[in-house]
Order: sequence, then C-alpha cells, then structure tokens
Amino acid sequence: MSEVAASADDACGTGAGSHDSHGYIEHKDDLLKRLRRAEGQVRGLHRMVENDEYCIDILTQVSAATKALERVALALLDDHLRHCVASAAADGGVEAAAKLHEASQAIARLVR
Amino acid sequence: MSEVAASADDACGTGAGSHDSHGYIEHKDDLLKRLRRAEGQVRGLHRMVENDEYCIDILTQVSAATKALERVALALLDDHLRHCVASAAADGGVEAAAKLHEASQAIARLVR
Amino acid sequence: MSEVAASADDACGTGAGSHDSHGYIEHKDDLLKRLRRAEGQVRGLHRMVENDEYCIDILTQVSAATKALERVALALLDDHLRHCVASAAADGGVEAAAKLHEASQAIARLVR
Amino acid sequence: MSEVAASADDACGTGAGSHDSHGYIEHKDDLLKRLRRAEGQVRGLHRMVENDEYCIDILTQVSAATKALERVALALLDDHLRHCVASAAADGGVEAAAKLHEASQAIARLVR
Repeated sequence: MSEVAASADDACGTGAGSHDSHGYIEHKDDLLKRLRRAEGQVRGLHRMVENDEYCIDILTQVSAATKALERVALALLDDHLRHCVASAAADGGVEAAAKLHEASQAIARLVR
Repeated sequence: MSEVAASADDACGTGAGSHDSHGYIEHKDDLLKRLRRAEGQVRGLHRMVENDEYCIDILTQVSAATKALERVALALLDDHLRHCVASAAADGGVEAAAKLHEASQAIARLVR
Repeated sequence: MSEVAASADDACGTGAGSHDSHGYIEHKDDLLKRLRRAEGQVRGLHRMVENDEYCIDILTQVSAATKALERVALALLDDHLRHCVASAAADGGVEAAAKLHEASQAIARLVR
Repeated sequence: MSEVAASADDACGTGAGSHDSHGYIEHKDDLLKRLRRAEGQVRGLHRMVENDEYCIDILTQVSAATKALERVALALLDDHLRHCVASAAADGGVEAAAKLHEASQAIARLVR
C-alpha cells in the first residue's frame, strides 16, 4: 500500500489536455491485458453458441466473463478513488463534492 | 407464452449427437447477435482505456457490458428451464433430479 | 440428490387449499431458522448504527446479511424448481409454461 | 450537493473517543428508520414461510429486502467516502492510503 500523493498532477480532468493524468494510468497495461482477455471470453461464448454447446457450459462461461469484467471495474474504481477522488478531496470545495457524488453513483451502478 | 412440449426431442444431451436439441436453439440467431454486440462493447472498453478516457465513463461502459451479459445469461437460462429441465422433469427420476440440481447451481453462480 | 417425484401432491397452488404443498415444506424449519438469524443480523445493524460504530464495520455486516438473504432465496428457488416447476412441467401445457415463465422472472429479480 | 469540509472533525477514528464523528452521523435517523423497516421485512418473510405462502411471493419479498439493505449499504458508503475518506485524503500519507484501500475492499464485498 503506497502513500497517497494528493498532488496537482493527479487531478483527473475530462478535457482534452487531461491525457496521462487518469487514475488507472499506472495500471494501463494490466487493464488492457484484462480487457483483451475478456473480449476473448465473449468471443468464445459466441463460438460455443454457434457450435450448439450445452446451455449450462455456456452459462458457466458467461459467469466467468461477467466476473472478469467486475474485477476490471473494481480495479478501475480503486485507482479512481486513490487518484482522482483523493486529489479532489484534498483540494476540497464544490469540485470534491462533485467527484464524490460521481463516484458514489458509479458504485451504485456496479452494485445494482 | 407458448405451451411446453415435454417431448423426447427436447432432451438436452451433452454428447456429440445432441446438436440442434438445446434449449436456446430457436433463439440462436438472437443470442449470437447479442454476443457479437457484447464483444464490441468489450472491444470499445479496450479502446477507451487506450485513449486514456475518463475513469467514470469507462466504468459506465463496464456496467453496460456486464448488464448485457447478464441478460444473455437470463435468456439462456429461461430457454434451458423451458426445454432441457422441463423435458427431464416430465421424464422424472434421477435424470430430472440431476438436471434440476445443475440448474440451481448455475443460478447460484449468476446471483453471487 | 433424491429422485424427483412429479406427483400430484407436489402441485403448488396459490389458493387457500394449497397449504402444506409448497416446494419448501420439507425445509421449512431450516428456512425459519435462517430467517430468524437474518432478522437478528438486521437488528444488529440497527444497534451498530445506534452505537455509532465504524462505517466499514457496519458495511461488512450489511454484506453478511445480504448474502444470508441471498442464500435463503437460492434455497427457496431450488425447492420451487424441484417441486412446483417440475410437477407442472410433468403435466405440461399452458400451466407448465406459466410456472416456467414465473420462475424465470423470479430468477431475473434475484440477479439484478 | 454540499461542499466537502475536510476538517479534522470529520476524521473517522475507530477508537472509543470517536463517537459522533462518523460519516453517517447526519443521516443517522434516516438509517435507523430504514434498518427498522428492513427488520420488519425479514420478520414478514418469517411469517410468510410459517403461513405456507407461495414460494414465488416469498422470493419477491426476499428480493425487496435485499434491495433495501443494498440501498442502506450505498448510503453508508456514500457518507463514508464524503467524510472519512475525503478527510483522510486531505491529510494524505499512509492513513489516506489505508482508508482508500479499506473503502475499495468494502465496495468489492458489496459488488460480489
């Protein structure tokens, strides 16, 4: 568990100049690898249906793909809290409240 | 809501000769279309991360892809209950118990 | 795993005379015990908030209570499939289709 | 959406002297009311099973109780992020990292 550096560089803008400043930037390669794998899992599902494989076996694979995407979401959210939200919170004010509100809504979408 | 025809043709074997007898067979095109779309959604996620898009926007898309896969799973399960499980239940005995046990376990994997 | 007896006694009516014929009847004591425990968990949550306990500790208990209710739901559903749905499927026809449709909708409510 | 006041008073200790300083303190009455209602829902489930009510009706109520607890969890988490986590993030350092790690783990427990 590393320290949280609430520096200006961590600010997570959504504008054009905000590249390279997102929370997940240091785990980008890992995220891309996971998403490539999840894409392969969904393609595998397509193949299973095409080959008339057994419903329950397909369902098992759907659950695996869903869980993989959920792990991606939790990793993204962790990075987002650690960087974008932490940095906004350090600055305080309306911007912090907005970032926290936005994070809560994203969490609610994941839970439901 | 159509009637349930518990005929032998609905029996859902897992062996080689069991092609064209799975529950989802009549919705196969629809399932394939949905899975193609889900694959596109996951590929879109990869592109979003590559382009350093905003974490929360990516999270929104992950939730959408997860929900799409969940709907595929529920459709598959509905077909499976309607055909494979209903047919086995009509025959009764150990085979029916096995199919019902298997379906319950698949449901549990979806819920958790 | 016991055999599935698709006898008329398993028919799961919703009318007044349908008592003692529901799928969960043989696990009724177990279900009542689990629900009593879940009720105690929720009462415990109330006490934790009243005593100003730490948010994260309360959240851990909420997750435990939710999981306990989910297990109750999966047990109920398993009994329902094994008895009410299996029995209706054995009879076939419109009634079977209705029971299967109803079960699928209950599963969808659990998953979402 | 109110501003985030990252003052020392918001610090969410877990020790004896930390009473009245938790994130949910300003929504405490609302939380207690919701939990009382959830407890009533679970007691209602017990009564439904005792009265041999129809499986699917009980399942519908289990889903309602689970959703109610999920909403409690999301409200608690929102307050926790807004106060305990935001305040720790403003202070920075190891404590901030620990709070963020703890919050991410609580979110993961809710999602799974």
